[in-house]
This record gives sequence, structure tokens and C-alpha cells, in this order.
Amino acid sequence: MLEELRNKVWKANLDLVKYGLVKLTWGNVSGLDRESGLVVIKPSGVDYSQLKAEDLVILDLDGKVVEGSLRPSSDTPTHLELYRAFPEIGGVVHTHSCQATAWAQACRPIPLLGTTHADCFSSDIPCTPDMSESEIMGEYELNTGKIIVRTFRESSLKAMEVPACLVANHGPFVWGADCMKAVENSLVLEEIAKMAMLTLQINPEATMNPLLTQKHYMRKHGPNAYYGQESRELKV
Amino acid sequence: MLEELRNKVWKANLDLVKYGLVKLTWGNVSGLDRESGLVVIKPSGVDYSQLKAEDLVILDLDGKVVEGSLRPSSDTPTHLELYRAFPEIGGVVHTHSCQATAWAQACRPIPLLGTTHADCFSSDIPCTPDMSESEIMGEYELNTGKIIVRTFRESSLKAMEVPACLVANHGPFVWGADCMKAVENSLVLEEIAKMAMLTLQINPEATMNPLLTQKHYMRKHGPNAYYGQESRELKV
Amino acid sequence: MLEELRNKVWKANLDLVKYGLVKLTWGNVSGLDRESGLVVIKPSGVDYSQLKAEDLVILDLDGKVVEGSLRPSSDTPTHLELYRAFPEIGGVVHTHSCQATAWAQACRPIPLLGTTHADCFSSDIPCTPDMSESEIMGEYELNTGKIIVRTFRESSLKAMEVPACLVANHGPFVWGADCMKAVENSLVLEEIAKMAMLTLQINPEATMNPLLTQKHYMRKHGPNAYYGQESRELKV
Amino acid sequence: MLEELRNKVWKANLDLVKYGLVKLTWGNVSGLDRESGLVVIKPSGVDYSQLKAEDLVILDLDGKVVEGSLRPSSDTPTHLELYRAFPEIGGVVHTHSCQATAWAQACRPIPLLGTTHADCFSSDIPCTPDMSESEIMGEYELNTGKIIVRTFRESSLKAMEVPACLVANHGPFVWGADCMKAVENSLVLEEIAKMAMLTLQINPEATMNPLLTQKHYMRKHGPNAYYGQESRELKV
Repeated sequence: MLEELRNKVWKANLDLVKYGLVKLTWGNVSGLDRESGLVVIKPSGVDYSQLKAEDLVILDLDGKVVEGSLRPSSDTPTHLELYRAFPEIGGVVHTHSCQATAWAQACRPIPLLGTTHADCFSSDIPCTPDMSESEIMGEYELNTGKIIVRTFRESSLKAMEVPACLVANHGPFVWGADCMKAVENSLVLEEIAKMAMLTLQINPEATMNPLLTQKHYMRKHGPNAYYGQESRELKV
Repeated sequence: MLEELRNKVWKANLDLVKYGLVKLTWGNVSGLDRESGLVVIKPSGVDYSQLKAEDLVILDLDGKVVEGSLRPSSDTPTHLELYRAFPEIGGVVHTHSCQATAWAQACRPIPLLGTTHADCFSSDIPCTPDMSESEIMGEYELNTGKIIVRTFRESSLKAMEVPACLVANHGPFVWGADCMKAVENSLVLEEIAKMAMLTLQINPEATMNPLLTQKHYMRKHGPNAYYGQESRELKV
Repeated sequence: MLEELRNKVWKANLDLVKYGLVKLTWGNVSGLDRESGLVVIKPSGVDYSQLKAEDLVILDLDGKVVEGSLRPSSDTPTHLELYRAFPEIGGVVHTHSCQATAWAQACRPIPLLGTTHADCFSSDIPCTPDMSESEIMGEYELNTGKIIVRTFRESSLKAMEVPACLVANHGPFVWGADCMKAVENSLVLEEIAKMAMLTLQINPEATMNPLLTQKHYMRKHGPNAYYGQESRELKV
Repeated sequence: MLEELRNKVWKANLDLVKYGLVKLTWGNVSGLDRESGLVVIKPSGVDYSQLKAEDLVILDLDGKVVEGSLRPSSDTPTHLELYRAFPEIGGVVHTHSCQATAWAQACRPIPLLGTTHADCFSSDIPCTPDMSESEIMGEYELNTGKIIVRTFRESSLKAMEVPACLVANHGPFVWGADCMKAVENSLVLEEIAKMAMLTLQINPEATMNPLLTQKHYMRKHGPNAYYGQESRELKV
């Protein structure tokens, strides 16, 4: 069982490279097995070109390593906080992908301006507020997870309807039902980040009718979804 | 006969990937055989990397499936409406290609600013108006086709002279004499969308002399066209 | 002798694709043998992926075809006018490369803002004025060549010091001592076009000290050039 | 010993191409062996596709060639000045990579706006002032090195904390503990240059909390660094 998850998470990490979402070691993917409560995650600072499935680290939701000799990603406490707070998610991705990171550095949410966005995310992609001195100087990575969760709670956002958050001056954290879906959502995020910037350069007043958002989100994700084939997870 | 069309449409779908016009499953190509009135189209939500020619769905112009076990693209009613309204066209493409989609999201036509544009399209690429609530909540994909057709009728545009339309807040629909030509037009559209944005960033007052437009359009498409070789379809 | 030139021009045409300077059939390279007065040029509208060396057309400087069964590039009269007016040049390239074309569509010269530009071109890249109705409706491609030459004469520019010109609302024509050098200059042009736009977005008041321009141009092209190896043509 | 360095420097030069940081011959990498005081550097104007390890030139810190028949990079005096002034560095890179060069041409420092920047550089990337007429017309390349060093001295910047400098109207010089690290820093520089421009286009008032900078810089480079694996140089 965990062998299968380990292989999925390994492949999902390599997909970040394939999709052009990471340079050097700037990213990590984890996957959670809800039954055992165990998380498989990339080791810290290891080159993707040399990453082997057996390098991945397995730990429980409290961060106790149960398998693996390498140090887990330094962002591990952020991943774990997201898994603890959002019970529907099974995969988390962090990258510094260029276009999404630009919005995070600008400390601005990515506005919903088109159906490409609405097909995957039901509203703007939020951006966290600045962290306080004690949040930065304390358990920084854990606090990164907490401020994402707080941002969602305060805006009444649902994790599975908006499976991504920008961390101010840092970059995106993205999630999904499993690690492959989280990587797919990361790719969508990068693309809509680019489209949103271009859109506003053409028309700074661009907006979108909420009904059109709802229509597109629902035709892929609603109870009567009719996009894709019957058996595909896209319909879930 | 339809075997040949099926293979052309399959190849045209893969060309979207080759030309960088689609991410994930965000696009579809169809081709029409005018004689039999049958359309070959991509199935919904199937990965391009796994798409086989036999996965394509064949249906008539009323949308009745005559061959294929998979569900056709959810955009099928849009394709069919275009085939019914524009009798000269034999292929339709829909993508969310980044630069053209940005103009669609900005709800702005792509202005004709250079000969690259004029070589393929005789005027600005129009953008549809917003859809009404009943258009969105009713037969949405069919209404998408209808609003494209209405946009062309109201502006007295000819489908073969401007073989593309932006759908507001959504993305481009593109067509041509056959499916290969429609894909080629999609590539041109993406490139001129990018060039137009860059042009206006350099000079927001940029315009083009209509005579130059006419000259370029006619040297490729007019009765005395002299671009390309005698036997090439470019001259048609 | 012409076999060698034919092969060079063929390879130079393919290099346009390799360097990402053309989409579809939007470009052409020619090379001139000054001794025989013969020009080798790409045929019109032929796909680069199917272009064979034997497809190239050979003609004299008056445009009379002396070898080849295909129609030469529709831009041939522009190439020939440049060869007739600029006796030092041995290769001409025309593309619709995206960044340079954006400046041409904006009808603005590319300003000299850095040493990357100065290493290859000793001043701004000029842009032609608009063509008149009679220039467009008459021998258009010949007149395109003439307006380039006139732009150079009126600004006292030397063809070998600024081996490129933007044609308003159209795109760049580029040249060099031979066809390979003309392609290299096309690549430089595209890169400096992009850099100039980015530079002005960061600092709309950016300028460059003319002394620095002179220093960089001269260290590569002056009588005491010291860039490259003794035997390299870069020093010529 | 120098064979090993020669191979590293050769590979580091080729990595510039792999990372998309150079076009044509626009870049060079050198590496220094502090023990012997010898520098290995790329020869001037040689194509990367034809560069062999044995083409590299070895010289001492005064510029006297001790091995190699080709002329060393014309930027050699800049490299040597940096090695003489910054005793901790073991590798130097010069490129005209597009995004970093745009900031150099704009004569503006790259502002620190995110953790991607702070993970590698502890402050803004400085840009040198304009060179004087005598600096340009005198020993230009040596003076380029001197103005970089003066820029660092006058701003009290430490070479190993900000391992890069923009040279006004020219492009970036980058360094590191060794030549591989200098190339890695060049890649980071190019990426943060792009991110900074995009960020300011979204929000011209963007800034970053200095505490967050310090936190990120220190978790990778401080005495208690915890990014990466125990044995990795990233921790040094």
C-alpha cells in the first residue's frame, strides 16, 4: 500500500519538473494515506535528476519519521498542518513557479477572470496576510500552514473548491484529492496566474459574471457534472 | 473515407500539443465530412498522451452519435452550431491557449496591427458579448455557438475571412476549410495575440493602414494570390 | 561553388526553426554569390520540415530564375533590392519573429540600451515610414526593399554597421556578410527586441552612454578588435 | 588537480546553455584554484556546441597565460579583479541572460520581493553606476571589475551574501564558492529578475518584511541552517 503511494509521490515530484514548475530544488510534493495516517514526502534539497523513490521520507501526521534516512523537506510542517486541517485532501504541492509566485510576491489574490480558472477553482486564489514577527521567528513552517488555514476559515473558503493558496512574499501551496491531482492543480494555477496578468494588462477593468463561474465549475465538479468520461476522477 | 477523416482529426488533435496550444485536456478538434454530414470529434476529458484514433467519436450534425463508445467533447454543441451556420468550414478547434485566452478574458477583440495577422485574418478577431443568464443556464454550449454566429452576423464578418472568434471570459474558437487548417489558424491566432499585446505595450496608439491589410490578405487569399506554390491549398 | 552556397542557404533556413525565429512558413533566407551575381533563396510557402536543399531556387539579381522548378519566396524582390543597394552584404533573412515584429507593428525603432545590442549593431534599429498607396498597390515587395534602402540613406546608416531594419506593420529584414551571419544577426535582433521592451517596462527613461556603445561595437568590429579568436570572422 | 577544475569549468560553461542562460557565445565561466592561484576560463568567442575541455585557458591572477593556445575570454580581467577582491569566491560567471540584463540595461537594482530571492541573496542585487569616459576608454574590462568591487564596498555588501552584481547597460556578473555554485546563482538571478518584474507589474508598491528575508536566508545559509541534507554544500 505505501509502496504504491511512495511511487505515486515520487512520480508526482518528477512531474513538477516535466511541467516546468520547478527550477533546481524549489518544490516538493507529498501524499497522505488517510487510513494509516502516514505521509510520503520529498527529502530536503535533493536534486530532482537524482531523486529515487527510496529517497522519499515517510512520517506520521505529527512529523515523526517512520521510514527513510534523509531529512524530509523543510516545508514538511506546512504540509502536515494542511492535512490536519483539511480532511478531504490527500496530496500537497509547494513550488516557486514563476507566475504564481509573482502574485504571491505582490501580495495579491489571483482574480477569477475566465473559465480556465473556474473549471478548477470556484473563486479567486487567496493570498495570506503578512506573518507577524513571532510567527516568522517561531515555528515558521508550521505557522505558514496555520496562516493558510486561517485565511481559508476567515474567508469561508472550502479547501476542495479552492485547492490553492498564495503565501505572501513566498509562493503557492496547492493541494488535491491525491498527489497527482495536486500537481495538476499546480499546473492550472501557474497558467491562470499568467493569463490573469496578461488579461489585466489588456483591460485593467476585466471582470467575470459569477453565473458563468458557477456554470463552468459545476459542469466539471457539480452533482450533474458532464465533463469527461463516466469513470474519470475529474467528475468526483 | 471516414477512416481518413478520423486519422486527420486525430493527428490535428495531437498537433495542438505539438504547437503548445493546450495544457492537460484543454482543447478539442473536430472535422466534418460535408458529403455524409458526419463529424469526427475528440472524446471529453481524455489525455492527449493516451488519445488513440479509435477513441474519436462520430456524430451527425444534430449531435446523434453514430460511432464510438466514449462521450464526445462537452463543447460538441458549439462545434455543430458552427458547422450548421458556416457552410464553407470543415474543421473546428477550441483551445485555452494562453495569449488568445487573455484577450478573451479581457473581453476585447484582437486588433489588426500587422501583416502576420492580415496574412490569415482580414480584420480584428471579434469577441462575443457577455451571455445572458438564460443563455448560460440553458443549453450553454449550444448558446456559445449561437453567440459566435450572432457576433459574425451583426458585424457582417465572413467566416472564411476571419476564421476565429473569442468567446468572452472563455477562450478562442477557430475554424478552417478542414481540421488541419483550423489548427494552423489556431497557431496563427496565438502568435498574433501575443504580438498585439507587445505592440500596444510599446505604442498604445499603434494602428495599421487598411490598404496594407488588403494587400497582404489578397496576396495569400485573393483571386490573384501569388504566395506559395501553384498546387498548395494556401492559395485557395 | 553554388552547390556549397545552396547547402549553406538551406542550412541557414533550417537554423531559423532551430533558433525559434519562425512559425509555419513565416520566414526565408537567401545567399548571394557576388562573383556570379546569383542568389539562392527559399521557395515560397514550403514547410521547413519538408524543405530539401534541391528545392531552393537560384536566380540572378534581376530576378530571372536560372535553376529550380518551384516559385521563389514572394519576398524575393525585397532581397534582390537589398543586394543591389548594399554591396557588402551576402545574405538576407526575413522573419516574423515575435519580439522584433512587435516593434515593427508599433512602428518604433528598437532603442540601443545595452552592450548586447552594441556588440552587433552600432545604433538603434530603424523602422521604415508607412508606405504610400502607390507603393503598396504597385510592386509591393520591390518597394519594401526600396523603402528600407531609403530609410538607411536618409539616416546615413551603413548597412554593415546596422545589419537590420524593421518594416512598419510588417517585420524585420536582416542581413550580413553571408547567410549564416544574417541568421545570427536575426537571433541577436530578436533577443535585443525583447530586452529593450523589458528594460523600458522597468525604467521608461533608460538610455545608454554613446561611448559605451562605441567601445563595445569596436571591441568586436573595429580595426583593433580583440573579441574572439584571430581566425574568426567575428573580427572582420 | 587542475584537470578536475578544468572539467568542472568546462561542464559549468555547458550548463549555461542547458539552463537557457546564453545565446550564441554570450557568456563565460571561470573557476579558481586558490592553492595554486590559477584560473581556468573559457576561450573568447568559441561556440558552446564546439567547446572542448582542452580549449579552456589557464592563467594566473595577474592574467599571465600558463596553459592553452586560444585567447581567453575578453572578460578575463573582470573575472580576475573579482577573484583578487573577494577572497571567498571560487567561480565567476558572466552572461547576457535576458531578464537580468533588462534590469542592468534599466540601471536599476533588482529589489528583494520574495523568499526565492532571499533563499540565495540577502539583499537587493545592486547595479553599478555609469562608468566614466576614462574608465570606458582605459582598461575597460579591468575597470568593470573595479566598479563592481567599488559598488560592493560603498554599500557594505558582502560578496558571499550577495553573490551577483548588475553592470549598468551591460549585464550580470555572478559568483560563488565554486564555478558550479556560480552557475546555479546565475540561474536563480535570472528567475528572480523575471519574478521581480512581474511582481511590480501586478503591484508597483510591493515590498517584503526584512524579518522574512532574514529567516529565509538564515534557514539556508546561517549557522543553524536546516535546509537540505547534512552533507550538502548548500548548508555551508
